[in-house]
Amino acid sequence: MIKLISSIVFVLFCFFANCQTQLNDSVIAASFFSKSLTDDWAINNLEYLVTSFPKRLCGTKAVSEAVKWSEKTLKELGADTIFRQDLMVLHWDRGAQEKGFIESKQFGKNKINVCALGNSVSTVQNGITAEVLEVQNFEELQKLGTENIKGKIVFFNRAMDPKFFYTFQAYGGAANQRTKGASEAAKYGAIAVIVRSLTLSNDTFPHTGVMRYDTNYAKIPAFCVSTFHADQLSNQLKKDSKLKIYLESSCTMLPEEKSCNIISELKGTEFPNEYITIGGHIDCWDNSAGAHDDGSGIIHSMEVLKLFKDLGIKPRHTIRIVMFMDEEMDQRGAKKYAEYAEKNKEKHIAAIESDRGGASPIGFSLDVNDTIYNKVMLWQKLFNNYGFYQFIKGGSGVDIGPLKKFGTPLFAIMPDSQRYFDYHHCANDTFDKVNKRELQLGSAGIALLVYLIDKYGL
Amino acid sequence: MIKLISSIVFVLFCFFANCQTQLNDSVIAASFFSKSLTDDWAINNLEYLVTSFPKRLCGTKAVSEAVKWSEKTLKELGADTIFRQDLMVLHWDRGAQEKGFIESKQFGKNKINVCALGNSVSTVQNGITAEVLEVQNFEELQKLGTENIKGKIVFFNRAMDPKFFYTFQAYGGAANQRTKGASEAAKYGAIAVIVRSLTLSNDTFPHTGVMRYDTNYAKIPAFCVSTFHADQLSNQLKKDSKLKIYLESSCTMLPEEKSCNIISELKGTEFPNEYITIGGHIDCWDNSAGAHDDGSGIIHSMEVLKLFKDLGIKPRHTIRIVMFMDEEMDQRGAKKYAEYAEKNKEKHIAAIESDRGGASPIGFSLDVNDTIYNKVMLWQKLFNNYGFYQFIKGGSGVDIGPLKKFGTPLFAIMPDSQRYFDYHHCANDTFDKVNKRELQLGSAGIALLVYLIDKYGL
Repeated sequence: MIKLISSIVFVLFCFFANCQTQLNDSVIAASFFSKSLTDDWAINNLEYLVTSFPKRLCGTKAVSEAVKWSEKTLKELGADTIFRQDLMVLHWDRGAQEKGFIESKQFGKNKINVCALGNSVSTVQNGITAEVLEVQNFEELQKLGTENIKGKIVFFNRAMDPKFFYTFQAYGGAANQRTKGASEAAKYGAIAVIVRSLTLSNDTFPHTGVMRYDTNYAKIPAFCVSTFHADQLSNQLKKDSKLKIYLESSCTMLPEEKSCNIISELKGTEFPNEYITIGGHIDCWDNSAGAHDDGSGIIHSMEVLKLFKDLGIKPRHTIRIVMFMDEEMDQRGAKKYAEYAEKNKEKHIAAIESDRGGASPIGFSLDVNDTIYNKVMLWQKLFNNYGFYQFIKGGSGVDIGPLKKFGTPLFAIMPDSQRYFDYHHCANDTFDKVNKRELQLGSAGIALLVYLIDKYGL
Repeated sequence: MIKLISSIVFVLFCFFANCQTQLNDSVIAASFFSKSLTDDWAINNLEYLVTSFPKRLCGTKAVSEAVKWSEKTLKELGADTIFRQDLMVLHWDRGAQEKGFIESKQFGKNKINVCALGNSVSTVQNGITAEVLEVQNFEELQKLGTENIKGKIVFFNRAMDPKFFYTFQAYGGAANQRTKGASEAAKYGAIAVIVRSLTLSNDTFPHTGVMRYDTNYAKIPAFCVSTFHADQLSNQLKKDSKLKIYLESSCTMLPEEKSCNIISELKGTEFPNEYITIGGHIDCWDNSAGAHDDGSGIIHSMEVLKLFKDLGIKPRHTIRIVMFMDEEMDQRGAKKYAEYAEKNKEKHIAAIESDRGGASPIGFSLDVNDTIYNKVMLWQKLFNNYGFYQFIKGGSGVDIGPLKKFGTPLFAIMPDSQRYFDYHHCANDTFDKVNKRELQLGSAGIALLVYLIDKYGL
C-alpha cells in the first residue's frame, strides 16, 4: 500500500514537474521572441554591415573590414572570449565589368547582362566571339559530341523547376550547370560557357556563384546570364541558329590572402568544454551587398548571443558564435573550424547554421539520427506559436557540414524560401529586401533551439 | 460467417477506397500548386490591375475602370456567368495633399507627413494651429477631461504591439484610435486628432484608413501621421509641451455614386443553386496602388476560377468569384451581397475571403462550428506540403462577414503577416512588394480548399 501511494506520489510529482518544465520553456520561448521583436538591434546592425561592407568577397578589403566590425560588435555584446582562426583564402578578382552581346544578322546587336562565375578564368583581352549551342544538361552535351561543340560557346539554359515548393530543391536541380558546366563543355572543345542564372525570377540580374574546373580539361571562361536575357537568347537562337555571342571578362586569380574565422563564446557554466556552435558566413559575392546571403545569418548568430545576455540566461555548455570566412569560394573557414575542433579534441554537441536568408522562418532542417530527431520533435510545439512548423530531416549547411564526421548533430534554420533566389548572388540582395520582423523571428527561433539543446541535451 | 466475410470485404473496400481518395486528393493538390507555380498569369494580371488602376477608392473613375477590367478578365477566363450587383457608394475625396508642421520655439518648424483619415471632414481653409496633447488611449482622455483637452489637437500615439507574432492582432489592439479617436476627443472639446499610423514599420508613410463619427459629437478633422514623425512629435513634446501643430486638409464628401459588385460563376454540375463564394475587394485606398490590399485578393479569387478551368475540374456546386466593392469605406458591397443572397434565398455552403495580402500563405482562419472545424482538420495534411500549417478558429473577413447570419461557414486565407502592415493603406503598397510565387501559392491553396469543400461538403 505504501509502495502504491509512493508510486502515485512519484507519478504526480513527475506530472507536475513536467508541466512546470513545459510552462517554464514556454515562458522562455516567449521571452526570446518578445525580446527580439521589440529590439531594433538586428535590423540596425544588418543595415550597418551590408551598407558599410558590401561586396565582401574573401580576400577583399571589404571582408577584412567586416571582420573587424564583427569582433568589435561581439565584444560590445559581451562575449566572454573572442578569437581568430587564421587561414589563407583565394583572392579571385572580377576585374572590369564584363561585356556580353548577341550578334545576329536577323536581330542585330543586343547587349545581354552577363557576369563571370566565381573562380572563372578570363576571356582573351578583346573578348571572344563564337556561335552558340543551347543545351539543357550534360547528357545532351554528350550526345552532341565534339563535332557539334568544338569552337562554340555552350549555353546551359536549364531553368530551376518552379514546381518545387521549397526553392532550394529547385536550386539543387539546376546548380551543376554552374559548378561543373565549363569542364563538361570543355571536354568537347567548347571555348566558353554561359549559364542561365539560378533564380526563379524573370529578372535582368546575372546571379553569380562559384564554378570549379576539372583539371583534366582546358579551363574555359564561364559566365552567367540573367534569366531575362537567357530567354531572349534562347528565343533568338530558335530563329537564327547561326547567331554569335561576344563575351569579355578580365577576372584574375590573385595571390592568396591571410584571413580568418571569428569565434566568440559565451562560456558554459557546467560544461565549458562542450560546444554548441551557431554560425553564418561573413563573406559574400562581389556583385552583392549580401543582405540575405549571408548578412542575415551573421546577424541571426550574433543576436542569439545578445538574447542570452539580455535575458540573463547562463548556458550550461559553451555557446560559440562563429563568423565563417569564405563560404562562397572555397569553404576554407568551414574546413579550418573542423580542423581546429579535431586538433583540440573539442566536443561539439550541436551546430546550427543560418545561411538560407532572413525571411520568415518556417522551421529547421535536421541532419541528425532518428533518436535525436524524435527528441527534437518533442520541442516542436514550443516553436509553433512563432511560425516554425517544419522540422524535416535533411541537410544543414556548408560551414558546419565538416563537423558531421565527428557525429555532431547539425541543424539549419529554414526561412520561407520563396523569395530567396530572387536575391541570391546578385546585385538585388540589398538591405531593403530584409524585413525587420522576419529577421527577428529567425534569431529568436535559433536562440530557443540552442536553449533547449543546452538544457536537455540531444 | 458470410456476414463476417462481407464485413471484412466492406472494411477492406472502405480502406482502399479511402486510400484511393486520399491519393486522388494529393494528386489534385499537386496539380493546383504545379499549375499555379508554373503560370505567370497571376503576377502579370496583378501588375496590370495595380499599375493601370491605382488609387481605386470607391466612387472614383479608377475603380470603375478596374470593374470593367475585372469583367473582361473573368469573361476571358471562361466564367459561365458574370453579372453586376448595383449599389451606391460614398464618394469621399481627399482634395489637395494635406499639410502638417510642428511649430516649436525650441525646435523650429518641421514638416511632418500626415494625411486625412478616410471619411474625415476637412480643416478650415487655411488650416488649424493648436497645442497638442499626446495620449495613448481613451481612458487617458477621460482622465484628462475637458479642462485639459478643449481647443487642442489630440495626438493618439499608441503603437501597435510588436510582441504579437500575428500582426493582425497588433493591428486590432491599436485600431480604435483611428476609427473612433476623433469623436472620443471631440467629446472633450478637441479641435482635431492626429493618429499614429497603424504599422509596425518605422517609416515616413502616413497609413490611412477609415474613421467614423459618433453623431453625438462635433465632427473634427482626423489625420494620421507616419510613425517616424509620430516619434519625432512625441520626442519634441517631451521637451516642449507648448509646441503647436499646423494641420491643413481639404477633403470633401461628394454625392454618392453608382457602383457595383462583380459576380462571376462557374456553374455547379450537381447543385447549381448552392454556392461557394471566393472573394476579395476591388477598391483600395486613394493613396495606394493596393497591391497587397487587396489586389492580391482579387487575383487569388480570379485564379481559383482559372485553375478549375485549366485543370478541367467541374465543380458540383456553383463557385462564385466575387469582386467586392467598397470594403475600405462603408462595406456597401458586403452588405449588398448578403442582401441579394437573402432576397434570392440562396444557399451558401461556404465563403472564403482573401484580404490579408499576397505573402506566403501559412494557413486559414475558420469562422465555423466545431464539427466543421474537425472535418477541415482532416484535410490539413494535404496543405502541409505547401506551407499551410495554421488552421485556427477565428474571424474571416469584412466582405463575407454578413453571410454569417445565414450560418455560412466562413474562411480567410492567412498569408504570412510580418510585412503586411509595412504596406497597408499607404503609398508603399506597390506591385513590386508582391512576390510571384507567394501570390501563386495563395491561389492554389484557396483552390484546394474550394475543391475539398465542393467534393466532401462541410
